[in-house]
Amino acid sequence: MAQHTYDFGLIGLGVMGRNFILNVADNGFKAFGFDLDKEKVEALQKEGGDLDKVDASTDQATFLDALQLPRKIMLLVPAGKIVDQVIENLLPHLDEGDLIIDGGNSLFTDTDRREAYLKEKGIHFFGAGVSGGAKGARKGPSIMPGGSREAYKEVKPIFEAVSAKYKGEPCVAYLGPKSAGNYVKMVHNGIEYGLMQLTSEIYDLLGKAGDMSNKEMHLAFDSWNKDRLQSFLVEITAEILKKEDEYGPGELVDKILDKAKQKGTGKWTSQNAMDLGIPVPSIDIAVSMREISALKNDRIAADKIYGRPEPKRIEKKKLTKMAEEALYFSFIVTYAQGLHQLSEASKEYEYDLNLGTIAKIWRAGCIIRARLLADITKAYQSRPDLPNLLLDPSFSEEIKATIQSVRELVSYGAENGIPLPGLSNSLTYFDAYTSGRLPLNLIQAQRDFFGSHTYERTDRTGTFHTEWES
Amino acid sequence: MAQHTYDFGLIGLGVMGRNFILNVADNGFKAFGFDLDKEKVEALQKEGGDLDKVDASTDQATFLDALQLPRKIMLLVPAGKIVDQVIENLLPHLDEGDLIIDGGNSLFTDTDRREAYLKEKGIHFFGAGVSGGAKGARKGPSIMPGGSREAYKEVKPIFEAVSAKYKGEPCVAYLGPKSAGNYVKMVHNGIEYGLMQLTSEIYDLLGKAGDMSNKEMHLAFDSWNKDRLQSFLVEITAEILKKEDEYGPGELVDKILDKAKQKGTGKWTSQNAMDLGIPVPSIDIAVSMREISALKNDRIAADKIYGRPEPKRIEKKKLTKMAEEALYFSFIVTYAQGLHQLSEASKEYEYDLNLGTIAKIWRAGCIIRARLLADITKAYQSRPDLPNLLLDPSFSEEIKATIQSVRELVSYGAENGIPLPGLSNSLTYFDAYTSGRLPLNLIQAQRDFFGSHTYERTDRTGTFHTEWES
Repeated sequence: MAQHTYDFGLIGLGVMGRNFILNVADNGFKAFGFDLDKEKVEALQKEGGDLDKVDASTDQATFLDALQLPRKIMLLVPAGKIVDQVIENLLPHLDEGDLIIDGGNSLFTDTDRREAYLKEKGIHFFGAGVSGGAKGARKGPSIMPGGSREAYKEVKPIFEAVSAKYKGEPCVAYLGPKSAGNYVKMVHNGIEYGLMQLTSEIYDLLGKAGDMSNKEMHLAFDSWNKDRLQSFLVEITAEILKKEDEYGPGELVDKILDKAKQKGTGKWTSQNAMDLGIPVPSIDIAVSMREISALKNDRIAADKIYGRPEPKRIEKKKLTKMAEEALYFSFIVTYAQGLHQLSEASKEYEYDLNLGTIAKIWRAGCIIRARLLADITKAYQSRPDLPNLLLDPSFSEEIKATIQSVRELVSYGAENGIPLPGLSNSLTYFDAYTSGRLPLNLIQAQRDFFGSHTYERTDRTGTFHTEWES
Repeated sequence: MAQHTYDFGLIGLGVMGRNFILNVADNGFKAFGFDLDKEKVEALQKEGGDLDKVDASTDQATFLDALQLPRKIMLLVPAGKIVDQVIENLLPHLDEGDLIIDGGNSLFTDTDRREAYLKEKGIHFFGAGVSGGAKGARKGPSIMPGGSREAYKEVKPIFEAVSAKYKGEPCVAYLGPKSAGNYVKMVHNGIEYGLMQLTSEIYDLLGKAGDMSNKEMHLAFDSWNKDRLQSFLVEITAEILKKEDEYGPGELVDKILDKAKQKGTGKWTSQNAMDLGIPVPSIDIAVSMREISALKNDRIAADKIYGRPEPKRIEKKKLTKMAEEALYFSFIVTYAQGLHQLSEASKEYEYDLNLGTIAKIWRAGCIIRARLLADITKAYQSRPDLPNLLLDPSFSEEIKATIQSVRELVSYGAENGIPLPGLSNSLTYFDAYTSGRLPLNLIQAQRDFFGSHTYERTDRTGTFHTEWES
């Protein structure tokens, strides 16, 4: 084998890694993989076909020798300590100017630490979120790279070739320094949590309020996916609802256990939003709901203790229309919260993010891709410093046109014991964010009462303290 | 001055510190204070009267010489780096076996770090949350100490003497090792955030739905405070609502700016609950609402863009009754979430907490003291491993008797554009926690669809993966 002839190296040949490297090879770049698992290496060699285009090894030295200098090495391994181990194993054998790209969902502070550590040793380090699942990796994901702008030039042709395309434009762009790429991917996933929770609530509502069958719900999601709600998550929900169970009659979805797992990116989004002081309650509640779902035994015990109202029926056609409006409204609000978080993170961590560019590379390839993102892109392109999507004129029209259905369905859920926490939090966020005056004056009075924390006044400047007790 | 004659030392003579040390002296212990600020030292000396009972100095050596061995030194200084600085200044001059007590709202992981660091040097370290505000410090706070059980014996007589009493029982107890005390105080504050948000929503509702004046609202809160809702926060809300503005006609509360500040403990509670996987949405949303309140300029801009429904009126008497029931329900749910978090933290951090004891020492002195806590104490005394307050028979009766009002008011708020996120989250938490079946089966299907994350089934064991696409 000729040395230093492969354009791109990839470590970790699981489903995502194998698919990504095949995608690279499909696009005319010579790619070399590395995994300690011989079966994975052989599977790739077999699937790739031409070893001159895509090859792999279980031996790190062979892998490193195969790559052109400066090496471009992407890691698709589980986030956490494994990333550090892989880096330590590589480090003694790298050459100055080599580039390591972490394609996993690493915590952004880990990426900052690794980037600083490797910079000292003359190695470039990129955190590059990759979204699109296994299929996206194979056919074109959305890629969110951050790190040194100079080093990005080395991988730009490859990333642009393999990424998803939206009307011919690649769904990848240099996003900013340090952990900007990981951070954007984290918030992407937070938004994903929010949207998934919302679709699950609408599914629940159609079933309970409308007594709709899976087949009928499939038709509803399928038709929504042809219009303004067109999105990957609505599309796959339609697919899921019609999937038959291989073990018996009826659809598979009914047989799936209602305990949702999580891997941490949604949680990190919420936790970091709190550090930034940015409200993202539609994401927070999605995290909480996964937690509540995990408490299955408690839920069964509690269910026995408490009755709940028999839900009143809503006529199917009317319900379907309202559900579509409510889902559209709450999708907008959830994107608004995530983007608001990004705008603050951009300042706090000096990422200098361009929100229009981010919305642009989310339009295809990633899990939260949606027709909506074309409009979001336009909103931020026309006003890059937009504080919140809800303040954009075209979105305010959409909100006004749909909010009545949200009010009615949240009200219905509260009265009928159907938990719609994602819809509720999207609505109360909206109602609070659009309130020139909130009742938190009382909270400031309470804080001053018991802790002498002082308060401000509406009619004069300065801070004030009152001896409240009479 | 005779050396080593004072029983208790206190560093940081701000309002809390001065009041706490005077409380110690009132209870027959000789107390010595230390602060670099001469005015604060002199203020204490003057207020204390008899220098043989309570004295202070701006000189650390004088302070340390005054204290009996082993020294008991409490810090009431701002959380963060200052605590470390104070410790470093003391360290070279301490004797083995001395005890440092951090009475501030330090992050529990900082307390763990400091405790381990000081243990190596033969110094005991306690994190002891103190709640009750300035007045509580003076007249009897609730104290939440954690650290070495042996060392606690040294301060137990002093803490029991100075603490608030509930029917003669001191509101202090040894809670557990390491940062147990700080952790419990953190969650106490998280609950406090939740309860404050809820009272502010009820205040908003009475005003908007009932067109009630501050005077009428004062009467409502005041009457509630004589019954099952009796609590410090309801009591001070009643006081606040009648306080006249010294600058002009009407009540002061109307003139207070609606931007609520925060110091971090509520945020930490939410962030750590997410690490533990415990849902506390009534606390999360209280944090979010303080954040939204801070976005005053955005809110004013958004208010101009969006109209909102003119709220329908609810007859005052009916509204007051419903509001009382809704507040009582959501107070219970908020305590339930915080205590659930404590039960999980107890396992995760090996605190071995006794929830009955915690509820007991919250019954008086602290900001979240409430008549409810007597029943909560009983619930955990009769079943120490109760997974959640909602599963306790006496609370389930209270919940059933009040929930209809919550349903109606949350529904009303959604329809009328009055944000009631704390009430909503308390209700949706309840409705989700009591659902034997939740729609998160769809989320598991989605995760398996795009990420091959697998799922479990309701009718057979194992994990499953499906090729969803047709």
